[in-house]
Amino acid sequence: MLFVARMDVVFPESMTDETKADFQVKEKAYSADLQERGIMKGIWRIVGEYSNISIYEVDDLDFLHATFQGFPMFAYMNVKVTPLAKHPNATTDDFFRQL
Amino acid sequence: MLFVARMDVVFPESMTDETKADFQVKEKAYSADLQERGIMKGIWRIVGEYSNISIYEVDDLDFLHATFQGFPMFAYMNVKVTPLAKHPNATTDDFFRQL
Amino acid sequence: MLFVARMDVVFPESMTDETKADFQVKEKAYSADLQERGIMKGIWRIVGEYSNISIYEVDDLDFLHATFQGFPMFAYMNVKVTPLAKHPNATTDDFFRQL
Amino acid sequence: MLFVARMDVVFPESMTDETKADFQVKEKAYSADLQERGIMKGIWRIVGEYSNISIYEVDDLDFLHATFQGFPMFAYMNVKVTPLAKHPNATTDDFFRQL
Amino acid sequence: MLFVARMDVVFPESMTDETKADFQVKEKAYSADLQERGIMKGIWRIVGEYSNISIYEVDDLDFLHATFQGFPMFAYMNVKVTPLAKHPNATTDDFFRQL
Amino acid sequence: MLFVARMDVVFPESMTDETKADFQVKEKAYSADLQERGIMKGIWRIVGEYSNISIYEVDDLDFLHATFQGFPMFAYMNVKVTPLAKHPNATTDDFFRQL
Amino acid sequence: MLFVARMDVVFPESMTDETKADFQVKEKAYSADLQERGIMKGIWRIVGEYSNISIYEVDDLDFLHATFQGFPMFAYMNVKVTPLAKHPNATTDDFFRQL
Amino acid sequence: MLFVARMDVVFPESMTDETKADFQVKEKAYSADLQERGIMKGIWRIVGEYSNISIYEVDDLDFLHATFQGFPMFAYMNVKVTPLAKHPNATTDDFFRQL
Amino acid sequence: MLFVARMDVVFPESMTDETKADFQVKEKAYSADLQERGIMKGIWRIVGEYSNISIYEVDDLDFLHATFQGFPMFAYMNVKVTPLAKHPNATTDDFFRQL
Amino acid sequence: MLFVARMDVVFPESMTDETKADFQVKEKAYSADLQERGIMKGIWRIVGEYSNISIYEVDDLDFLHATFQGFPMFAYMNVKVTPLAKHPNATTDDFFRQL
Repeated sequence: MLFVARMDVVFPESMTDETKADFQVKEKAYSADLQERGIMKGIWRIVGEYSNISIYEVDDLDFLHATFQGFPMFAYMNVKVTPLAKHPNATTDDFFRQL
Repeated sequence: MLFVARMDVVFPESMTDETKADFQVKEKAYSADLQERGIMKGIWRIVGEYSNISIYEVDDLDFLHATFQGFPMFAYMNVKVTPLAKHPNATTDDFFRQL
Repeated sequence: MLFVARMDVVFPESMTDETKADFQVKEKAYSADLQERGIMKGIWRIVGEYSNISIYEVDDLDFLHATFQGFPMFAYMNVKVTPLAKHPNATTDDFFRQL
Repeated sequence: MLFVARMDVVFPESMTDETKADFQVKEKAYSADLQERGIMKGIWRIVGEYSNISIYEVDDLDFLHATFQGFPMFAYMNVKVTPLAKHPNATTDDFFRQL
Repeated sequence: MLFVARMDVVFPESMTDETKADFQVKEKAYSADLQERGIMKGIWRIVGEYSNISIYEVDDLDFLHATFQGFPMFAYMNVKVTPLAKHPNATTDDFFRQL
Repeated sequence: MLFVARMDVVFPESMTDETKADFQVKEKAYSADLQERGIMKGIWRIVGEYSNISIYEVDDLDFLHATFQGFPMFAYMNVKVTPLAKHPNATTDDFFRQL
Repeated sequence: MLFVARMDVVFPESMTDETKADFQVKEKAYSADLQERGIMKGIWRIVGEYSNISIYEVDDLDFLHATFQGFPMFAYMNVKVTPLAKHPNATTDDFFRQL
Repeated sequence: MLFVARMDVVFPESMTDETKADFQVKEKAYSADLQERGIMKGIWRIVGEYSNISIYEVDDLDFLHATFQGFPMFAYMNVKVTPLAKHPNATTDDFFRQL
Repeated sequence: MLFVARMDVVFPESMTDETKADFQVKEKAYSADLQERGIMKGIWRIVGEYSNISIYEVDDLDFLHATFQGFPMFAYMNVKVTPLAKHPNATTDDFFRQL
Repeated sequence: MLFVARMDVVFPESMTDETKADFQVKEKAYSADLQERGIMKGIWRIVGEYSNISIYEVDDLDFLHATFQGFPMFAYMNVKVTPLAKHPNATTDDFFRQL
């Protein structure tokens, strides 16, 4: 099952640049692992914003929530999740290639 | 360049079921052609809504607008377009397989 | 997997009372069937509105969309779907009794 | 009488992880008590958010407000309450089993 | 238990002035009855709008929904209901006199 | 003349519990005085929120603003004021009893 | 007492140009009368919109609502009313000259 | 040319009462000067809010922005500006008297 | 003085394609004239929408409103106008070439 | 390809005036460079707000995002980007002169 998420990151005023950089390193590793395991099917930056659009394939909503909660920056993210179904006009069941 | 669109369809009260069905046939063919030509990289139904999330790869904004305007149901759609850039945490430049 | 939906019904101005009543009869049968099959776990009226809050248990998002699309009044509904996960403070995995 | 609530938790920037953890322990106990007493009929996490959807059965609005105000994290919650009535298409008066 | 409602009336374009006037006569009678029975504790026009703010005292949410649904103009109203509890700064349990 | 207000209280993160409690004592006295003088005709808690709905009878808008500005917690309140007129379906000019 | 209103006019699709022109003639006469009587202190077009910002001086909210309801186009207007008080930085109690 | 502005003031949590009072003194002088020079044609408090509605007559948008930016509290204001044109139903070109 | 406008076009359901095409021809001529006279400095389609972003240079707000009202499709447009001033980081007073 | 952006600047409460001034100097240099290189085609202040409307010509969305991210104040900006296409009523392909 596919879900698309929009994630907006807002860091608190008091966070140092070092802490931010450290979060970004951890975030990158976490995202890479999700991609490698085929959970995160795609992730893109929204132009001009500290936000992403990302797509997830999971079997289970508890697992999906755990996936979001596991993001190192989760406490600083607003996440909005939209469940997706097959569109009648899609010519394939799977648009994504194997990473 | 990638763009994600959200399209919401609202048919007028006076439209007959025949006209709607005819639009849907034309829409399916138009979407299939966009997918075959690699312009529409993916399309999904938003669960519970007469709406889709779709992703487009184009070289040019005039072409992109023409692509939207060419949808048979364009006059009955609200389309919101978001430009996407490569995300630093993406492990690939291209998540989509060749249809 | 559980999903909560809010459905708002808006009938077009031209619809006769007979057509509305006919829709309501069909809707009642459709909802009863979903309840009997354990797909619709609960449905409540939002006080003062022609709207409901309802909860669905399904294994699959395509099936969930098909369930919504199957509502006789689907063309006159705005449906907003929210995916639900187990809450850490829940004392049970299943709050609903078998209908 | 049933009410559905959506609760969004926002902790202040200055709160330590220890304080947060302490709040979560107290919150869990408070929620368990409400469930045991049949006041909270269900509680679910909204996928991707630090939020819940929960359903309450109470006889009295003063009691309901006191119930919300009693949550250990109440000062850090935005709570929106929606009153629910029996839906004409519901096949039962009570969807919830006895916890 | 007290609930405050905001009701906005929107008549369809096709409704004749006679039908509107007829609705208003029925609405007045219905409101008077609710006031006499102590269900509607107060009703006021929002200045400049075809809207009201009204307050209801009821024992039961099903009865409250039935009360709203019984308004002759219900199909042309948007109703938003807010549940009210005793305020700690209120000097009385009941602000309303017996009509 | 009657006005209905919705007041939402948001205390700053740095305010101590003692200061909050002190504000609440002063607020209670201020509200009691307004009720005794017949200026505040009613005040109710919105269930689940740190908010109230309150109704004011005043002769003058400058006096009304001064009344709001006089609330001890005014600096921490968002206040939205709606002017009310007699509703044609009201069976009385005055729903409120003398406190 | 002063109130500022924003009025947005939306004519139904079926209204003929003749009817619109007739409404506009009546509206002009009604507005002129309000200005002459010192009730409407000012009226301006919002640039680019079929909307106005207008200011009213009245002694009474019932009279103010009656004034709005008396506009020939009232049924086609959305009116939002904001009550105004003297500003501490105003150098006069009355900015408006006698028309 | 006339413009109407709505200004909402939000002071930061850390600002002392002395600083606030100092700002208010400077603001009063600045507003008085604008009124004397015929730039600010009127200013009113929105009842219940730390906000004003004010009207400006200027020849130039750069000058208008400089006027707003010159407010001592500018850094703590949200300002929304609406351009105004003569309304066809206005009986005069100038509603304001000379201060 | 420069103003940026966003215009959204919504045609009524009953308008024929011939009428729409006729409006578009008149609109094109009207826009060309505004560009030739240096009033409309630029106009662009918002990708995916029946909307434009356009920039106007005028000396006067009455003239600006008359310019908008003169658009053949004005009755079917929602127009939002934003006044613009010179930005301190602009390296020129005039970004536009003479058409 | 052209994109229009709206940028709103919000500095944190703790930032000193010196830091703000330093940011503004760097921002001015960065903007000047973008203008000289023909990337930023125009930039204007929104009257009354700490915001700008600016137009960008770029070949690539990654480059566009990098351009936004390169603004010295990027961490304090909300940026909303809208893609633009040629409008059928435009009399030229390029409204902007060479800076």
